Amino acid sequence: MNGFTVWFTGLPSSGKSTLAKVLRDEIEKKNRHVEILDGDEVRLRLSKGLGFSKKDRDENIRRISYVAKIITRCGSVALTCAISPYKSIRQEAREEIQDFIEVFVDCELEQCIKRDLKGLYKKALSGEIKNFTGISDPYEKPDNPEITVNTSSETIEQSLKKIVSGLTKLGYL
Amino acid sequence: MNGFTVWFTGLPSSGKSTLAKVLRDEIEKKNRHVEILDGDEVRLRLSKGLGFSKKDRDENIRRISYVAKIITRCGSVALTCAISPYKSIRQEAREEIQDFIEVFVDCELEQCIKRDLKGLYKKALSGEIKNFTGISDPYEKPDNPEITVNTSSETIEQSLKKIVSGLTKLGYL
Repeated sequence: MNGFTVWFTGLPSSGKSTLAKVLRDEIEKKNRHVEILDGDEVRLRLSKGLGFSKKDRDENIRRISYVAKIITRCGSVALTCAISPYKSIRQEAREEIQDFIEVFVDCELEQCIKRDLKGLYKKALSGEIKNFTGISDPYEKPDNPEITVNTSSETIEQSLKKIVSGLTKLGYL
Repeated sequence: MNGFTVWFTGLPSSGKSTLAKVLRDEIEKKNRHVEILDGDEVRLRLSKGLGFSKKDRDENIRRISYVAKIITRCGSVALTCAISPYKSIRQEAREEIQDFIEVFVDCELEQCIKRDLKGLYKKALSGEIKNFTGISDPYEKPDNPEITVNTSSETIEQSLKKIVSGLTKLGYL
């Protein structure tokens, strides 16, 4: 069976990891093996020592891309949920992985700040954290993502449905 | 099908990568998907910026171990061929990966120096390179590897045969 990578991108607290988890459950029902490459875990396991400058973020994304490519080649499904704020490096990942479906997790910044799952927006707004995407660091929206969900206006179930339907139309599910 | 990791360990130029390639060909004949995690490629893709101190070597091996575990979980076969000179970190990899077969690629140092596939022994012996395993950095032989080959006294074909037979006996092939 062909492997593929679902590449979630969006602001912190936009819902990437939450969507990855429910999507995993959905894909596993079809007896496919799924690996989630979560931003935090990857930072710990592959990118200790890297910071949040553009150069370090890009290097972090290159490592995720390398591992997602391997998972894809193994015939499994990789779900990546790093912020991946820069267009050019997402394009690089797309070219490397090939079976690559970009899911833009759109969400109003105000909504993300309200959720603030890890309490990081608070620290970014007070200046305690520098280089925080959406506050003091840019986020470049994708121009042509295969799938867009809006977690400000949709429920998790609605967004999940959109993703599953998109993957099905693209022939991956 | 259950995945597994074949963990080659041995001095530079002992024959780890060469054996990994012929083993890959052999395993692919059985319609299994194989990924080689080569020391040099991993240094480039996952460990840019890490050096050759014990701390950095251990971190490099932890990253290889993380990816090998993922490949194994995907039901595929990971062949790692990093020097991995330290016992304790190989033990850590073994515990993390579980379906882990250690192959000790034993080879006389003099023979490795004669081969010097990348011209690095020459530089290490002249002092141009520091922290070079076997010359200015330790190599800790495994106490109880599942499989031992000796590339000083065996041909590639003989060593390969030993490995395939070992994997078969262990129920992996």
